[in-house]
Amino acid sequence: MLKTFLQRCCSVDETAMLAAQNRWDGIAKPLRSLGELEKMVIQLAGIEQTPDLSQRKKAVLVFCADNGVIAEGVTQCGNEVTAEMAKNFAAGNATINTLSRVCGADVFPIDIGIARDVKCPGLAQEKIACGTQNFAKMPAMTRQQAEQAILTGIRLVEEKKKAGYNLIITGEMGIGNTTTASAILSVLLGIPPEKVTGRGAGLTKEGIAHKKEVIRNAIALHQPDCNDVVDVLAKVGGLDICGMAGAFLGGCIYRVPVLIDGFISAVAANCAVRLHPYVKDFIFATHCSAEPAGALALEAIGKQAYLQCGMCLGEGTGAVIGAKLFDFALAAYGEAAVFAEMPFAQYEHLE
Amino acid sequence: MLKTFLQRCCSVDETAMLAAQNRWDGIAKPLRSLGELEKMVIQLAGIEQTPDLSQRKKAVLVFCADNGVIAEGVTQCGNEVTAEMAKNFAAGNATINTLSRVCGADVFPIDIGIARDVKCPGLAQEKIACGTQNFAKMPAMTRQQAEQAILTGIRLVEEKKKAGYNLIITGEMGIGNTTTASAILSVLLGIPPEKVTGRGAGLTKEGIAHKKEVIRNAIALHQPDCNDVVDVLAKVGGLDICGMAGAFLGGCIYRVPVLIDGFISAVAANCAVRLHPYVKDFIFATHCSAEPAGALALEAIGKQAYLQCGMCLGEGTGAVIGAKLFDFALAAYGEAAVFAEMPFAQYEHLE
Repeated sequence: MLKTFLQRCCSVDETAMLAAQNRWDGIAKPLRSLGELEKMVIQLAGIEQTPDLSQRKKAVLVFCADNGVIAEGVTQCGNEVTAEMAKNFAAGNATINTLSRVCGADVFPIDIGIARDVKCPGLAQEKIACGTQNFAKMPAMTRQQAEQAILTGIRLVEEKKKAGYNLIITGEMGIGNTTTASAILSVLLGIPPEKVTGRGAGLTKEGIAHKKEVIRNAIALHQPDCNDVVDVLAKVGGLDICGMAGAFLGGCIYRVPVLIDGFISAVAANCAVRLHPYVKDFIFATHCSAEPAGALALEAIGKQAYLQCGMCLGEGTGAVIGAKLFDFALAAYGEAAVFAEMPFAQYEHLE
Repeated sequence: MLKTFLQRCCSVDETAMLAAQNRWDGIAKPLRSLGELEKMVIQLAGIEQTPDLSQRKKAVLVFCADNGVIAEGVTQCGNEVTAEMAKNFAAGNATINTLSRVCGADVFPIDIGIARDVKCPGLAQEKIACGTQNFAKMPAMTRQQAEQAILTGIRLVEEKKKAGYNLIITGEMGIGNTTTASAILSVLLGIPPEKVTGRGAGLTKEGIAHKKEVIRNAIALHQPDCNDVVDVLAKVGGLDICGMAGAFLGGCIYRVPVLIDGFISAVAANCAVRLHPYVKDFIFATHCSAEPAGALALEAIGKQAYLQCGMCLGEGTGAVIGAKLFDFALAAYGEAAVFAEMPFAQYEHLE
């Protein structure tokens, strides 16, 4: 089933990209002087197969799920926080909601695996399990559950595209999900857990040392196959990360740009790119997380962040700020004066 | 006269800053997880002497001026471009205008020294000279002209504050102004011109080598006193840079936050901080310019940029994008759910 979707991954349109670059070069400003903003628009043109681009309608998908591994004491708080924050997202009171209002983005929280029973208006019911198993003892989930969560992410992007959204912002909430993210990245990149594990939402030095040990032992126990992303996700992953990986794949299948948020989201992006290399051209980094492996997770897929704000909140908070850059870039691209209207010549390409 | 204004420079209010930090710590998110956005708001509280902060009314001051040194062939185009772009700013058609509309900022172009005679509605008439002299042959301006341009920048901030603006964004337009900026920075930091000079709006390798030589020779000719900022500005500076230095000083005098844009603006910020050290706490870096000394100019005053977008357009374009971050930070600070309303405890400070 997942395989069928992977066969539908698209590539970007290089003719449209060239046309977009030419349009930038005609705007009355020094050549290439909007730097990454120009590249962003060019990439969008490749995704949408046209240099004629409209402003973005933005959806934030906040994947909420719990992680059984918190039984090992790797976090400061319990899974009641995941449930309460999911309610906050639905009620419009969390940090991501305040930032999304400034950005002009709509927030869609998704219960893809919250441990507790949370029913409230505005929280999409996509629960695959009541949290994962404790991966210190057994695989976090079955292979089937991992695939199902990925397919959910793909389907949500399809639904949002049908509803007119043309920019997807990934976010997550789930106590324990820096533990799962570090475990996955350690396996995928073949880097010891010590180098990719941080304090998450708050731990003492001893707490971090314990978290690293839990991850190291789990990898030794389950021996995830680094060449089989679904195996890695099932053994040491989380349902939120599977859902986000699906969203990145969905971008590549349905030709919608998808934004990476922080560390956890970047790990999900790594999973998606491993599942299909074309995904890389449909995703954008936004900010660089303050988690120690935040930069590494982006580098591993050749992405550079626009924002360096030392943020590590999650929920999609960094990505929704980054999403505003698309409004800026598209406004300059679409509205600024062009040389053709000016009484002086275009800047020349010089080396 | 300038001395009188320097004596009126204010310091930030540390009590208000502490109160702002405490308010952040009460918001339902991991402690300090909004990173630089939290620090930004704390600094604003220090500037306005209260933790109760409102959203920003934003003014972009675009200082337009010409530089006699372009007679030496250090640029790709002539001073007709400064005049035409000033008209574009006033007409609302330039890149800065398109970005400012997205940001919600008002653009105020200022003729502080355009070589040509430009009169058009919306262009403030503050011309101190019809461009500077060619500093390869003689000092760019008199000491009195430099002081007058600085005082103009100070006064403009006062006027904007009276008009209700509480965030000032600096910008500039002036063919040849990366040459003046590199010359000033070279003198202030005691670094050879070779290390702080780039291609500006576009030069060949040979053109850059010539630009460096022009700067090196001018510094040798005029021997500007690195301990006397006004001397440096008068001998190898520009009227736009003087005006921006005044705007930064104005922020410190009238308690208004002022944003640094790119390389040229950062050099003006260096001048202002040398004139009075308190200025540093009233200014914010926004993006890091792609000009080779962009990062250095920020480091020299201990500032870090939020945005790494490889931009080098000028006009205030990077700063106006950075200005949007204030809207995001203040929305989270003012509107997000607090722990006191939640059924679980605040995160603990752990080391």
